[in-house]
Amino acid sequence: ALALATTAAAQFKPDELIQYRQAGYLFMSWNMGKIKVNLDRDYNEAQVADAANAIAAIANSGMGALFVPGTEHDIGEVKTHVKPAFFENPDDVRELAMDFNQKANELAKVAQNGDPNAVGAAFGEVGKACKACHDKYRAD
Amino acid sequence: ALALATTAAAQFKPDELIQYRQAGYLFMSWNMGKIKVNLDRDYNEAQVADAANAIAAIANSGMGALFVPGTEHDIGEVKTHVKPAFFENPDDVRELAMDFNQKANELAKVAQNGDPNAVGAAFGEVGKACKACHDKYRAD
Ligand code: HEC
Ligand code: HEC
Repeated sequence: ALALATTAAAQFKPDELIQYRQAGYLFMSWNMGKIKVNLDRDYNEAQVADAANAIAAIANSGMGALFVPGTEHDIGEVKTHVKPAFFENPDDVRELAMDFNQKANELAKVAQNGDPNAVGAAFGEVGKACKACHDKYRAD
Repeated sequence: ALALATTAAAQFKPDELIQYRQAGYLFMSWNMGKIKVNLDRDYNEAQVADAANAIAAIANSGMGALFVPGTEHDIGEVKTHVKPAFFENPDDVRELAMDFNQKANELAKVAQNGDPNAVGAAFGEVGKACKACHDKYRAD
């Protein structure tokens, strides 16, 4: 799977890969924001389930393939906020990413049942997993 | 659901909404590209299924809420490529969006079974649905 992910990545230019990963994260953050609004105010079960599914499916889509050599630095107009440390600690990144994926899939599962308290707890875990990676590997 | 989608949208600024919708489309296009590479070369069942799931989950996430008044035009540095016609023809847009959603969910379903021919056909249908909207409602 890793070799094939690399093959697929080879189709794309480094500046495109940076934009794809930023798009994936940004779209997840919109969905996190929607879930938060639902938890804080009126809870709409279908909207929360759809948002949690989007986060989980993006998490499961192999974003690791978007961090290949050549994408460590800005490319022209395309600025990246990844820290060099990201590329120097693949094992730690993989661990954080796997933990995030697991939490995202758990949130998607819990969201199907529509219990706001359970969703709130699972949502908090996902948020911690986002932050754990940003604290180490994303520049301000 | 529409009222609640509006409530959730009210949390976000118009320039953020434009960036969220562009992110959703861009992330789908990465996943479309990966599926194409798989169809053209070595076919990796899991990679295709994951990519198709990401497209479907993004399609199902209620992107209509990202096209609210105030997001028809550029906002400072944030440029939009939506055509004014998008906001003038809500019924037609809804029809195209529903057709796209249905095709995206069909692709995700077919991708689970791992038959490249069936995936190729469903993939073609999704591509047509993307293009049908762009032809009418996206500027170059
Ligand atoms: C395994 C690491 C990792 C995880 C997990 C992670 N992020 Fe990030 N995130 C990054 C990195 C690295 C960047 C910088 C990407 C770049 O600029 O190239 C980033 C960038 C972002 C951005 C800015 C995108 C842009 O438009 O430039 C947002 C928003 C974001 N992340 C939100 C999230 C949310 C929400 C989650 C969880 C649901 C999450 N991230 C999970 C590593 C991670
Ligand atoms: C119902 C309408 C509609 C459908 C369906 C649709 N698009 Fe789009 N797409 C748009 C509009 C409108 C824009 C311009 C958004 C903006 O700039 O505010 C856009 C923008 C884009 C962009 C540019 C994003 C950026 O970074 O600015 C890409 C890439 C894209 N679409 C790909 C796709 C793909 C791939 C699909 C199908 C898998 C798809 N679109 C389905 C309407 C649609």
